[in-house]
Amino acid sequence: MRLLHLGDVLGQSGRTAALEALPMLRDRLKVDAAIVNVENSAHGFGVTAKICREFYDAGADVLTTGNHVWDQREIITYIDEDKTLLRPWNFPDGTPGQGDCVFTARSGKKVAVINMMGRLFMDPLSCPFQGANKLLGKYRLGKNVDAVLFDFHAETTSEKMAFGHHCDGRASLVLGTHTHVPTADAQILPGGTAYQTDVGMCGDFNSVIGMKHESSVAKFLTKMPSGRLEPADGPATVCGVYVETDDKTGLAKRIEPVRMGGRLRGSWPTA
Amino acid sequence: MRLLHLGDVLGQSGRTAALEALPMLRDRLKVDAAIVNVENSAHGFGVTAKICREFYDAGADVLTTGNHVWDQREIITYIDEDKTLLRPWNFPDGTPGQGDCVFTARSGKKVAVINMMGRLFMDPLSCPFQGANKLLGKYRLGKNVDAVLFDFHAETTSEKMAFGHHCDGRASLVLGTHTHVPTADAQILPGGTAYQTDVGMCGDFNSVIGMKHESSVAKFLTKMPSGRLEPADGPATVCGVYVETDDKTGLAKRIEPVRMGGRLRGSWPTA
Amino acid sequence: MRLLHLGDVLGQSGRTAALEALPMLRDRLKVDAAIVNVENSAHGFGVTAKICREFYDAGADVLTTGNHVWDQREIITYIDEDKTLLRPWNFPDGTPGQGDCVFTARSGKKVAVINMMGRLFMDPLSCPFQGANKLLGKYRLGKNVDAVLFDFHAETTSEKMAFGHHCDGRASLVLGTHTHVPTADAQILPGGTAYQTDVGMCGDFNSVIGMKHESSVAKFLTKMPSGRLEPADGPATVCGVYVETDDKTGLAKRIEPVRMGGRLRGSWPTA
Amino acid sequence: MRLLHLGDVLGQSGRTAALEALPMLRDRLKVDAAIVNVENSAHGFGVTAKICREFYDAGADVLTTGNHVWDQREIITYIDEDKTLLRPWNFPDGTPGQGDCVFTARSGKKVAVINMMGRLFMDPLSCPFQGANKLLGKYRLGKNVDAVLFDFHAETTSEKMAFGHHCDGRASLVLGTHTHVPTADAQILPGGTAYQTDVGMCGDFNSVIGMKHESSVAKFLTKMPSGRLEPADGPATVCGVYVETDDKTGLAKRIEPVRMGGRLRGSWPTA
Ligand SMILES: [Fe+2]
Ligand SMILES: [Fe+2]
Ligand SMILES: [Fe+2]
Ligand SMILES: [Fe+2]
Ligand SMILES: [Fe+2]
Ligand SMILES: [Fe+2]
Ligand SMILES: [Fe+2]
Ligand SMILES: [Fe+2]
Repeated sequence: MRLLHLGDVLGQSGRTAALEALPMLRDRLKVDAAIVNVENSAHGFGVTAKICREFYDAGADVLTTGNHVWDQREIITYIDEDKTLLRPWNFPDGTPGQGDCVFTARSGKKVAVINMMGRLFMDPLSCPFQGANKLLGKYRLGKNVDAVLFDFHAETTSEKMAFGHHCDGRASLVLGTHTHVPTADAQILPGGTAYQTDVGMCGDFNSVIGMKHESSVAKFLTKMPSGRLEPADGPATVCGVYVETDDKTGLAKRIEPVRMGGRLRGSWPTA
Repeated sequence: MRLLHLGDVLGQSGRTAALEALPMLRDRLKVDAAIVNVENSAHGFGVTAKICREFYDAGADVLTTGNHVWDQREIITYIDEDKTLLRPWNFPDGTPGQGDCVFTARSGKKVAVINMMGRLFMDPLSCPFQGANKLLGKYRLGKNVDAVLFDFHAETTSEKMAFGHHCDGRASLVLGTHTHVPTADAQILPGGTAYQTDVGMCGDFNSVIGMKHESSVAKFLTKMPSGRLEPADGPATVCGVYVETDDKTGLAKRIEPVRMGGRLRGSWPTA
Repeated sequence: MRLLHLGDVLGQSGRTAALEALPMLRDRLKVDAAIVNVENSAHGFGVTAKICREFYDAGADVLTTGNHVWDQREIITYIDEDKTLLRPWNFPDGTPGQGDCVFTARSGKKVAVINMMGRLFMDPLSCPFQGANKLLGKYRLGKNVDAVLFDFHAETTSEKMAFGHHCDGRASLVLGTHTHVPTADAQILPGGTAYQTDVGMCGDFNSVIGMKHESSVAKFLTKMPSGRLEPADGPATVCGVYVETDDKTGLAKRIEPVRMGGRLRGSWPTA
Repeated sequence: MRLLHLGDVLGQSGRTAALEALPMLRDRLKVDAAIVNVENSAHGFGVTAKICREFYDAGADVLTTGNHVWDQREIITYIDEDKTLLRPWNFPDGTPGQGDCVFTARSGKKVAVINMMGRLFMDPLSCPFQGANKLLGKYRLGKNVDAVLFDFHAETTSEKMAFGHHCDGRASLVLGTHTHVPTADAQILPGGTAYQTDVGMCGDFNSVIGMKHESSVAKFLTKMPSGRLEPADGPATVCGVYVETDDKTGLAKRIEPVRMGGRLRGSWPTA
């Protein structure tokens, strides 16, 4: 099976680039399922129903988010209608929306997608490691689902690597999001789970994590209130990860970073 | 000028790989100055005088560190004797050792190296942004020094990218360390400063940031005291960054990641 | 019903004072149930089985703890045998020991005691607010238990005050611990729950939260490793809270701080 | 000399109570100098020029603030005109306003007031401990000033107690602010400096640190955006500290908490 995940889409620059790249990537890489993290797609803060539709139209199957999910308030009421728009699974009981879903690809194969959030230097949610144990009891790779993908939205490399090893052999793919910088550590862990610490954003890298650098630097320097951060508007680099899984076991056979456009060195899965 | 920086060397596995790679890299890439971050070289925690000598013998010109600098107590008295072993510059006044130095390469060119630490989710030191302003008044690129290199030891991508932009046009090179995972965002910023968010460690990537994953995962899962973390002992990937600067301006002309051995996909500067 | 709670007992100085005060306070105040937080009783770090026995012998009915519970490793195996020694309730599933218990006083009245931990600037445990809802469904004040007492071990005044209001009308008493400084805000909240933000320690207040101030100040000033913190050994102030509840409703009728000995101004419930 | 300090004034309820109490307290306690922390006086967030004037009219000599100082933007331009309105001293170089001032009382005595901010769980500013050393070289108690008062705006009891000991014998008075809950640990430290971990707010204690408890509890429970926090509007308790110093040495002879009105038990300096 062929899976594609694009990292945090940032503002109009990231949206334009990701919406353009998505159909092309699906086509060229013969992708069975495409997942996009949209938590920063609405001017850097959250996502709207309209933007969700644009991504579905461009070929996304499941949309993930993170700590910015509620930044656009309309999403609070919208999310319960849209069963493939995920918010972090380990939000408190009673939170609107869903943190996991199963998507059936055109081929008939079933892909479980889980959006989980880390806790180190982040909000204290329920334990992602115990949550993973519960979910991996429900979604059994190679048994009732053909692939299991975690979008693990977290700050630190230590929690992300630990989470990868925790799921190793039980998930097809554990991908970090949230730091907005792609890491160069794509690997298949010893148990067969594909892993990359951070997918990286779809956004302009002449910036501070996608936002214009001037007011961000001013905040660090002066500790004074400065204007609201605005998305950088130069050409975006689309950052993603491409994974091939074994049809029998659901484990990964191959992981390749995808990077196109903008300031970063490109990376394209070799055929 | 040709500069090489290797990221946090982790334990015996990382040390073995980095000590072996260093002379070869100096030779093949015709490096004028080599910098190595050694803060985790002594069994994951700190560095010793003996290890420093091994790295100098292997071709290191300057050694940098970070929050783990004092983990081996012998270094507290040793550091004042060794003027090219740096600890973070923005430690409190009166701290032993030095945070910056100027190294004269065989070619006669002068390289200022500064070890600075970030503050987001780290210990509250003096401001690295204001510190950089002070140091960049002292070290004037293309005037009294031929290259200025920052090893910016920090946790978050936002502080690191902001620091890169803050120094852009005034330093040859701003490289992040501390997260132990190499990032895939090497670029020359608009003002001419080469930048990569994290160099990545020299260590075994079948691990949690270089340490054996079992007890690290247990800490996240159980919140119980578990054994002291031990360095993973599989083959290490050497992670580094190679930069070429313009001899007149001291600004960067080229930045290339270096990755060799172990589990990560290799990267080698094309000739 | 008459309840007494003593805050974090710190080292030998605190232990001596608390063990001496406890029988006297039980007697003079005709206490039905006495609870003591012992998380720092063993030289500032954790508690031992021997110290637990000393407190039971002196009249404690239930012992609570906090983030320091496992500092003495022997307690990990001991805690399952001792059903009135509590560790924070919201530790992960599978953690040794118990976070709540019901104690039957000599009068036959039943007191539920719960040890809960906050999350702001502390380790990410499961949600104390949702945990309280679950426990307050199990322990129904004035129905199946005569009193419900929370030892809420937390860092910030905001989380503690919010927790008090969250339990207001459903618990007899919410007392904060962990900061080691008694607060002067004892009150009965509008719904009938007695509340104080922090009970304060039983320890020497010529100190930094009970530890000798010299090396603590050095840590703040120098950011260098200094010696292990040692408990201050001057005379301790015993800090506690005394509460009277209504026998029918289980709600509080009266809350009075108790402070005896050492450097702090005394406070004694007026008859 | 007789000094009075009132803690963080919170919203209209706190303002009304503090403005009414201040002239009365000055009169009854024959206060030579009165300091008020006004960082939350403007509807919970910051302070305005108009509110400053009201406090000066009511008898305040110096106004202190903290992390909320810039919440009302007009203060950014106003603060340079008003030399007795302080912001934290250890803000970055170039920050508008001043962090210390010397006030001359009607008696001719000079009082140095310093507003300093802690760093544990707060923004990373320059070191308050090193800052205090610098300031205590400038202001020499019993030599060029008659009293030195620190308003130490900090989160944790450990940093506050350490700061008190650090200044002990060199300042007349170290008072904590920021947590909004008064502590019951007023004491004169061994070297002669009066100390209290937190003065407590002037505000309604039927609240979460002065704000209405409903939406604060909701934030802890649901992790969803809820409305902006609003100040609680019940009757406020005025929380302050009264100190008498020795006219020769400038050290403290007496420290007494002041609490009046609202829900907390009153405290009034005995004559
Ligand atoms: Fe994001
Ligand atoms: Fe995020
Ligand atoms: Fe490191
Ligand atoms: Fe580090
Ligand atoms: Fe404690
Ligand atoms: Fe504690
Ligand atoms: Fe504050
Ligand atoms: Fe405040």
